[in-house]
Amino acid sequence: MKQFMSRDFLLDSPIAQTLFSAAESMPVFDWHCHLSPKEIYENKQPENIAELWLTGDHYKWRAMRSFGIDEKYITGDADGYEKFMAWAKVMPYLIGNPLYHWTHLELRRYFDIDETLCERTADQIWKRANAKIAEGGFRPRELIVGSNVRCLFTTDDPADSLEYHRLIAQDRSFTCKVLPAFRPDKALNVELPSFLPWLAQFEKTVGEKIKSFAGLKAALKDRISFFDQMGCRASDQAFSYMPFAPADDIELELIFSKVLFKSPLTELEADKYRTSVMLFLASKYAEKGWAMEIHMGAMRNNNTRMLNKLGPDSGFDSIGDDQIALRLSRFLDSLAAEKQLPKTILFTLNPKDNYVLGSMLGNFQSPETAGKIQFGSAWWFNDNIDGMREQMKALANLGCIGKFIGMVTDSRSFLSYPRHEYFRRILCGLLGGWVEDGLYPDDFETLEKIVRDISYNNAVDYFKPKV
Amino acid sequence: MKQFMSRDFLLDSPIAQTLFSAAESMPVFDWHCHLSPKEIYENKQPENIAELWLTGDHYKWRAMRSFGIDEKYITGDADGYEKFMAWAKVMPYLIGNPLYHWTHLELRRYFDIDETLCERTADQIWKRANAKIAEGGFRPRELIVGSNVRCLFTTDDPADSLEYHRLIAQDRSFTCKVLPAFRPDKALNVELPSFLPWLAQFEKTVGEKIKSFAGLKAALKDRISFFDQMGCRASDQAFSYMPFAPADDIELELIFSKVLFKSPLTELEADKYRTSVMLFLASKYAEKGWAMEIHMGAMRNNNTRMLNKLGPDSGFDSIGDDQIALRLSRFLDSLAAEKQLPKTILFTLNPKDNYVLGSMLGNFQSPETAGKIQFGSAWWFNDNIDGMREQMKALANLGCIGKFIGMVTDSRSFLSYPRHEYFRRILCGLLGGWVEDGLYPDDFETLEKIVRDISYNNAVDYFKPKV
Amino acid sequence: MKQFMSRDFLLDSPIAQTLFSAAESMPVFDWHCHLSPKEIYENKQPENIAELWLTGDHYKWRAMRSFGIDEKYITGDADGYEKFMAWAKVMPYLIGNPLYHWTHLELRRYFDIDETLCERTADQIWKRANAKIAEGGFRPRELIVGSNVRCLFTTDDPADSLEYHRLIAQDRSFTCKVLPAFRPDKALNVELPSFLPWLAQFEKTVGEKIKSFAGLKAALKDRISFFDQMGCRASDQAFSYMPFAPADDIELELIFSKVLFKSPLTELEADKYRTSVMLFLASKYAEKGWAMEIHMGAMRNNNTRMLNKLGPDSGFDSIGDDQIALRLSRFLDSLAAEKQLPKTILFTLNPKDNYVLGSMLGNFQSPETAGKIQFGSAWWFNDNIDGMREQMKALANLGCIGKFIGMVTDSRSFLSYPRHEYFRRILCGLLGGWVEDGLYPDDFETLEKIVRDISYNNAVDYFKPKV
Repeated sequence: MKQFMSRDFLLDSPIAQTLFSAAESMPVFDWHCHLSPKEIYENKQPENIAELWLTGDHYKWRAMRSFGIDEKYITGDADGYEKFMAWAKVMPYLIGNPLYHWTHLELRRYFDIDETLCERTADQIWKRANAKIAEGGFRPRELIVGSNVRCLFTTDDPADSLEYHRLIAQDRSFTCKVLPAFRPDKALNVELPSFLPWLAQFEKTVGEKIKSFAGLKAALKDRISFFDQMGCRASDQAFSYMPFAPADDIELELIFSKVLFKSPLTELEADKYRTSVMLFLASKYAEKGWAMEIHMGAMRNNNTRMLNKLGPDSGFDSIGDDQIALRLSRFLDSLAAEKQLPKTILFTLNPKDNYVLGSMLGNFQSPETAGKIQFGSAWWFNDNIDGMREQMKALANLGCIGKFIGMVTDSRSFLSYPRHEYFRRILCGLLGGWVEDGLYPDDFETLEKIVRDISYNNAVDYFKPKV
Repeated sequence: MKQFMSRDFLLDSPIAQTLFSAAESMPVFDWHCHLSPKEIYENKQPENIAELWLTGDHYKWRAMRSFGIDEKYITGDADGYEKFMAWAKVMPYLIGNPLYHWTHLELRRYFDIDETLCERTADQIWKRANAKIAEGGFRPRELIVGSNVRCLFTTDDPADSLEYHRLIAQDRSFTCKVLPAFRPDKALNVELPSFLPWLAQFEKTVGEKIKSFAGLKAALKDRISFFDQMGCRASDQAFSYMPFAPADDIELELIFSKVLFKSPLTELEADKYRTSVMLFLASKYAEKGWAMEIHMGAMRNNNTRMLNKLGPDSGFDSIGDDQIALRLSRFLDSLAAEKQLPKTILFTLNPKDNYVLGSMLGNFQSPETAGKIQFGSAWWFNDNIDGMREQMKALANLGCIGKFIGMVTDSRSFLSYPRHEYFRRILCGLLGGWVEDGLYPDDFETLEKIVRDISYNNAVDYFKPKV
Repeated sequence: MKQFMSRDFLLDSPIAQTLFSAAESMPVFDWHCHLSPKEIYENKQPENIAELWLTGDHYKWRAMRSFGIDEKYITGDADGYEKFMAWAKVMPYLIGNPLYHWTHLELRRYFDIDETLCERTADQIWKRANAKIAEGGFRPRELIVGSNVRCLFTTDDPADSLEYHRLIAQDRSFTCKVLPAFRPDKALNVELPSFLPWLAQFEKTVGEKIKSFAGLKAALKDRISFFDQMGCRASDQAFSYMPFAPADDIELELIFSKVLFKSPLTELEADKYRTSVMLFLASKYAEKGWAMEIHMGAMRNNNTRMLNKLGPDSGFDSIGDDQIALRLSRFLDSLAAEKQLPKTILFTLNPKDNYVLGSMLGNFQSPETAGKIQFGSAWWFNDNIDGMREQMKALANLGCIGKFIGMVTDSRSFLSYPRHEYFRRILCGLLGGWVEDGLYPDDFETLEKIVRDISYNNAVDYFKPKV
């Protein structure tokens, strides 16, 4: 029996352990996360571990609700201690859940606490963790640097001024590059009530009225140029499925007029709008050498009552099951035909699509970049041992895993970097297992290169951030 | 090499073995099965093992057909001995099939026969098994009590008088509580030719003519009250996908009139009817504190020629691949919005949906019940080692497996209780493996609580049967 | 640690090793491949290993593109040595990819080269392999016989004269039977621009004008008789999903007239045409005792620019995600109802469908043939360790794996027979593992029979080729 989370956690063979030594020392490039640039800039001292753990972490909230914890202790007015105690009570029942590992990795790596969190130990851990926080090292920039993060991409609306990115860049002592990533979701979700308010905000940022579809595209193009000047190297967009419904300019102007006049769109019209905006944006990304991330398969805001109470991103999203293959293929093909396909990273939230995406990549690779089309790492609900192994096995079987750009936290928490360690352990466990089983030679030089590349180097080569 | 089906069958680590000691002794609560209350009441002495094994078990029938056995020896006029011999002949070729394990578990647990069934051993096993049956202990109530079953839910039509449940309850010496579960499928399948005959039977039971949709709902509500008085704690309904097509009362009355006048419905009309009935029923279940089971993904009666010959449930069903996520979400949301969502158990027959359901749960949990929304255990075609492990891993990764209400036989056979043993072994093997691998601490007190809860206690806490 | 690709490659238990000894010696029956009868007849001496490996192998081409290799070294005008060097460079990064194993199996089995292929070793391997080729034994018929292939089915258009099959059959010294398989895809893809040119060619073969749908069917029937005389025992057809849209003769004649007049068809019309042709063909296959292979789930020619440049089958295909269950069921049912369902082999390219197909089989089995409805082995993108294990586990769980007709290369390469060895090792590893784990008794006689049957005998019993 292995000790719980020992030094060889997830490393089941001596080879895996050797490989992890190579991976462990690599810096972190967190090219997709939801950290707040404002919080990074303000660099506030956190009050206690409840603030770090239970403010905004909808993964934990869902787990607590599943256990039957009252909302008061989740998003309600209970105090930090009470919420922490509620979380501790749930903990042991999350056997097999990644939260169990993340929680204990964070306790170990940031707080030097090796004890297991449960109701019995919670009070003592609360005190020890908070004492540690009071000692310092827990401000956002301290946590980032302490986690060996060299570069991170935030997620930013086209209407964003990127003021905080500018301010952060002025701190020369801060060794991590914080770069924006272009996330035009609000510009794409034309059918939602949020569109016109977004447009008003966007108009304010760009300093002019958007009166036409052509005008919108021109303004988005300007924002892409601005983001690019600010060091942006990637865009990101989320869809339940990748739309593909081509339309001509006249029709698109008509659709846009309907939007401006608050006339409701059909689903097809919304897809035509989205398709056209995406084809336009993608061609601009290609010009700038940006990567285009596409996140498919989330079904959001399923609980209307709770949405009205708590707003989005509160733990009421789940996995959709749309058909994605044909439209995604047509979308990518239509860009490739015009030589306007940017580097592209395809993510799915539904693991049934692992083989669809893993095989889709191969249709659009091209020599300008090694691994130009990437299969994004196991994400959100798949960000667990099984999910990561399945994504990597699909990629290895169907593509060239040696060129994989690896892990991202996708997180809102400054304590989430151990997820890179978790990923690297799983990666080394997987590859080491193959060598152990005689499926690959024990060529350590190559193996160590591969795990270092996947941990860090491939992403640097791929995004080429100006760092 | 482990001996075939030894004491440590499916228990690959000392920890798993220890955990199974804790699970093994727990009683059985079989909250979903297809046993006949009439047969339980009549409590007949079976004639031979062929009667127990090969009458009505369409799992075995399918396996025999796959091997090329003539229908005469499956559902035809061959005698019990011939059928048993045919089954024995197929046996060895079912390597990797759960029937191989179920068969040998049943031989061991009920007949004290450790030998392997095959053509060579069949005659001797036939004799020994029948001798054992003749010794007694094989009547339905004896098998139930001998299997340590404390409570079981049958599956009953709203038109059912529940007369046999009443009669069974009068036998005070019988230590298992046999409770009805409300299965309104025939009331929901409005587009099938069976609907009007069912309605006639239902009218007879309720003692009045159903002339309107409102009348149908009122009568169903009465039946729910009656079932509730009879101790019912759960309902069950099967869909290829969960319909969600809201409609207003006027439209529903029109649809119902069409049905009464035998005018065929469109698919959408049938879905509107089903949606409305289900929303109504669910709100009543919520009032009564019942759990609502939803079984999705079966595609039934695929072979028309055999359906005409043998009727339904004869082994000609398979797995469908409808999209289920969006409509299911809207259905549950629409109940949650009105605070009318009952405890709900979601089952899928298609394992591609494991992550869809596993993540759907989290959208609708609430503090009134721990694990209010449950992911039903691996069912029917998934009721095998791989299927059970996948379902439990999905649940553990996405939810809180510590609150899982566990296994059901879903069976028509009085010999099927070793499936609970099979499940518990797989559960303990899985959890024990995690501890063995250092993924969870060796906290035996908590671990034993968790396996006991999943084996029995959680289901009791969840359904709260009046026992 | 096991040595890379040692004698016990993929055989993790002594039992697996024993079973493989039984499987290893069985001949090969490759009942689905894309070898060229012309090349088999012409029996040319290959020039070098690049010609054998890199001409036409779109699996390798995709892998090279994923690594970022320039098309010049893939399908371009680089010479054989340069292409081989490019392939060698990619090799180490394909860790976890079946190409890594196939490449090294082929080096070992055909070239006696145990070294690992990479940039450093490539030049030496190039020289040694080519020297070996020059020594002889690498002509198509030599490779086939040397690989112990007793029978193989090619893939042939109804318009094909089968002249090369006739010529090959005249070589009495050639111990492998090369039989045609009927592949009417071009007759089915009525909506493609390739249909009318195909029809013209077909008319030439049959020696008459096809003026009506009835005429087409009659001519296809004649070709089936001709193929049957030539020893054909199987047909094969590919669909993204199995169409099922019945129509009457009048409508079908109208649809066919539209085709002849180059009037575009709706999707439904094309499906009606396809359904009707397939129902007709299937009934003829049943008469002849042929097996009907159905390959579902490929999404072809996704990259238009590369299709225009290189034509089809150049590595731009991937996995589709259509719903397949209901229409496939209706199609099979409609044949079964008329007692015209031939032996049928169902393949899926999308592993999400493994359980759909694995359970579909059971609906249509019948005593005329053991395992009449088969679940085709893991194919193309699934032809890897994980894919083969998943397909076999699904089949074992849901059906009767003892009657499985096993592996095919599906290949265009004369060096691909080690894929049968790969499959047999995985099969023996899987079954041996079950025995090792106590899930099946150590009854070696039965186990050896099962692996020999799956390796070879079951396919012979199933197809009954006249050899």
